[in-house]
Amino acid sequence: MKLLTYIYNNTESIGVLSGDEKQVVPCTDLGISYPTMEELAVKITDEELAETAKRLEGCKGIPLENVKVLAPIPRPSRDIICLGVNFKDHAEESKDVMGAEYAGERKYPIYFAKHVNEAVADGDDIDGHFDIVTDLDYEVEMAFVVRRDIVKAKAEDAAKYVFGYTIMNDVSARCIQMRHKQWFRGKSFDGFAPMGPYLVTADEFDFPPKTDLTCRVNGELRQNTNTALYIHNIPYVVEDLSSAMLVKAGTIISMGTPAGVGMGFKPPRYLKHGDVVECEVGGIGKLTNTVK
Amino acid sequence: MKLLTYIYNNTESIGVLSGDEKQVVPCTDLGISYPTMEELAVKITDEELAETAKRLEGCKGIPLENVKVLAPIPRPSRDIICLGVNFKDHAEESKDVMGAEYAGERKYPIYFAKHVNEAVADGDDIDGHFDIVTDLDYEVEMAFVVRRDIVKAKAEDAAKYVFGYTIMNDVSARCIQMRHKQWFRGKSFDGFAPMGPYLVTADEFDFPPKTDLTCRVNGELRQNTNTALYIHNIPYVVEDLSSAMLVKAGTIISMGTPAGVGMGFKPPRYLKHGDVVECEVGGIGKLTNTVK
Repeated sequence: MKLLTYIYNNTESIGVLSGDEKQVVPCTDLGISYPTMEELAVKITDEELAETAKRLEGCKGIPLENVKVLAPIPRPSRDIICLGVNFKDHAEESKDVMGAEYAGERKYPIYFAKHVNEAVADGDDIDGHFDIVTDLDYEVEMAFVVRRDIVKAKAEDAAKYVFGYTIMNDVSARCIQMRHKQWFRGKSFDGFAPMGPYLVTADEFDFPPKTDLTCRVNGELRQNTNTALYIHNIPYVVEDLSSAMLVKAGTIISMGTPAGVGMGFKPPRYLKHGDVVECEVGGIGKLTNTVK
Repeated sequence: MKLLTYIYNNTESIGVLSGDEKQVVPCTDLGISYPTMEELAVKITDEELAETAKRLEGCKGIPLENVKVLAPIPRPSRDIICLGVNFKDHAEESKDVMGAEYAGERKYPIYFAKHVNEAVADGDDIDGHFDIVTDLDYEVEMAFVVRRDIVKAKAEDAAKYVFGYTIMNDVSARCIQMRHKQWFRGKSFDGFAPMGPYLVTADEFDFPPKTDLTCRVNGELRQNTNTALYIHNIPYVVEDLSSAMLVKAGTIISMGTPAGVGMGFKPPRYLKHGDVVECEVGGIGKLTNTVK
């Protein structure tokens, strides 16, 4: 199922996309009463999910064009945990800007926190903060939402911790990311987390997912890979992160971006006012935002 | 006032330390009904604070030895924002381990997120995670709690955003901090955030505070400085961080540690089972934890 958070009649609600992707069926019409997507993700049972899918068939909803789609989890409870440089091709392109230590194979993943007060919805603008940012960049990523607390999990059990998947654009201010050494600030400006449009339940994918990941800027294909090519895939991350840190249900973990970001070009091709960024992940959809 | 979160009769409550520091007066006895310290910090008014201080005089409370003191904010709503290498002497000692780029003066602060599910109370143990950690380190820091949302603040207005101060031990697993490049993971293990014992209201300090910061390991003085020596002080941080990122009320910002950490010695002197770490900040008190 494709789940979404939306505004209709000035009220924020959660719902499920109909099979033809033309209507939104409110969760309450399907017998699901969790007030937010984050709460649904951490509380809903497999039985409730199956029941919801069954009820969805033939259900009439609100035409999609009549709602304002928000990010599936518009205000995450905690920072998003991101993987950095988790594709080999992106590691190669990064070395000139970020130093040789970021190139090639990597034995250990790079984790960092991305502070998100409010995720940006599909169709909304990306604030480029051009008063202080000279090198705004895009990063298409697939992110997953953690379903239950993860404590010292084994890689082979990872699937049971994944509620579903969405698309993230890990917007980054490169100068600020680099000059502060740690990436937290340059990744955490307000509006740097476009997310959505849908949160797709894990049953719609193999585990771990093998799906295409692309990013287009003004229609030009810039990033193009498949999630099968992660250096460290979800099972590894679930085991590794949880080995010494409780990863709470509801946490969003974003799995990293492939080659083709603006800083990888010579000369770099950073985002400017008016650019349209389309991040697409097979099986989820397309997240489109315009730089303002 | 020195505020604290404590357990008495199996119930978690918040209270104020009496003037002689021998009793805890429950907030409810002082006419303050916020259920948690975080909520108190972001909601209490100056008038309520003044009134509370007045009522505290001569008030009888629970003997301090009869309560279990917790970290003042035991379960922070969001990651702690930490400053790295924010004392010149610590920058110098860090360069051999962390590379020359961390040495000397720095134009831009280093910010990183420290994930804290549950802060460790004064008197409780630090889990060394010695199954995967070979170089456990201590870092005494002064942290402040943000009182109201900070949006594009000016340095000269910074004082009004600070609710109060506490002591943090930014416990770090150096090998993990370094090998993952970004520090998030090596700083975020469960039990790596001893905090407390008290949250002291801002009116008890000059602004920005000029107070002594020391750390002893098994009684031996290892770190010893004054918060007047920060490379980037609170007013700068408030303006800088909030220039492009909403810093929400309730956020804890930890201002960095001085020279004298274990990794700075030759050879390094890391923590081992049974070591007692005492972090002391003038005007707040002493945070003592034993490594297990």
